[in-house]
Amino acid sequence: MNMENIKKWKHVMKLDPDKKISAENLEKIVRSGSDALMVSGTQNVTRRNVEKILGMIKKYDIPKVLEPPHPDCIVDGFDYVFVPCVINSDDAMWIVGKHKEWVEKYDIDWETVVPEAYIVLNPDSMVGKVTKARANIGQKGVVAYAVCAERFFNFPIIYIEYSGKYGDPEIVRAVHKNLEKALLFYGGGINSREKAVEMKKYADVIVVGNAAYEDIDRAVETIVR
Amino acid sequence: MNMENIKKWKHVMKLDPDKKISAENLEKIVRSGSDALMVSGTQNVTRRNVEKILGMIKKYDIPKVLEPPHPDCIVDGFDYVFVPCVINSDDAMWIVGKHKEWVEKYDIDWETVVPEAYIVLNPDSMVGKVTKARANIGQKGVVAYAVCAERFFNFPIIYIEYSGKYGDPEIVRAVHKNLEKALLFYGGGINSREKAVEMKKYADVIVVGNAAYEDIDRAVETIVR
Repeated sequence: MNMENIKKWKHVMKLDPDKKISAENLEKIVRSGSDALMVSGTQNVTRRNVEKILGMIKKYDIPKVLEPPHPDCIVDGFDYVFVPCVINSDDAMWIVGKHKEWVEKYDIDWETVVPEAYIVLNPDSMVGKVTKARANIGQKGVVAYAVCAERFFNFPIIYIEYSGKYGDPEIVRAVHKNLEKALLFYGGGINSREKAVEMKKYADVIVVGNAAYEDIDRAVETIVR
Repeated sequence: MNMENIKKWKHVMKLDPDKKISAENLEKIVRSGSDALMVSGTQNVTRRNVEKILGMIKKYDIPKVLEPPHPDCIVDGFDYVFVPCVINSDDAMWIVGKHKEWVEKYDIDWETVVPEAYIVLNPDSMVGKVTKARANIGQKGVVAYAVCAERFFNFPIIYIEYSGKYGDPEIVRAVHKNLEKALLFYGGGINSREKAVEMKKYADVIVVGNAAYEDIDRAVETIVR
């Protein structure tokens, strides 16, 4: 695992294998100045649609990340495989169960693997429901999970995920203040430059997903350096 | 966290705060040549009985480890606090829940903390029942949890725990073969020199607990270098 390049990132665009994107919009995303493309989704992510989107992006000289929701959709050809652990899940399956299955079934290229501790804070989102995330834990609870992820489990990335909803910048600020070395990623509801600027104050990296499918020109404006 | 000294250990004696030990037997344990004393239990472990046993051992010049089953029994005065995560538990509480509570409630001296990934393989033991451990997972399953603990979660110690029952040396051997840097601890049913020698072939450190309460002279014979 090599974190050196990732440490320079400020902005990541997320592409959902379950959604359609035109070649024209993809071109706009790649040219936007975002630091990486992350292929990621919660539902209907298969080897087939991951390969399809990889086919569309592989010609571009930009770091490509796969963030698989389960081990059976992992394909070769990505620079990194960011493997999420939903650390505030109530279901062991999403903390370590799928990971164990993955190790048991596949021959893993650990050099490309980057473990991520997700803290999922929107209980109404698909990822919140699927992973049974304990979302109503207050700022102190979120900080405790983040510190635990960094200090006890040694995660190089802590990811605050509001999935589809703009989150509480105070929580992101508090987490950032309590981390010593892990990178803090923030995702959820960033669909304007103003929100991007606000969350970028506290997060090391902001991730923009839905906006790319809803209004490509506003999505491109979220790149803040 | 400083692992340098721990890497030299071969044998650890476990003392249960919920059990009585005489000063004479304690003296035999300390003089036995074991590398460390670990204060650890599953039931009825309180600040009060942890402090009591610490009071008995503090005069001895031997590394002292506290391995707390919950955060409310952690007291100052130990060289290390080995914090277990039962990675094959079916209950998120034993993987990350208690750890999050600990971070939330206490001001932690991280320098003394050593994270341990427990793989609990005796489903009939108290620890197996309390933590809802998935014990019947076969050799491949145990190896997968161990690799996951080492490579994904970065645990410096993987602990195979048969708690009260002598385990399968083939499983311990397979785990050892698949680890690259983590130390492998083995505990469970070591009550003779023969068993100690056998498990020590594969585990970096063997832990002897019950034997110290059942037959002190045989317990002392388990020290294999």
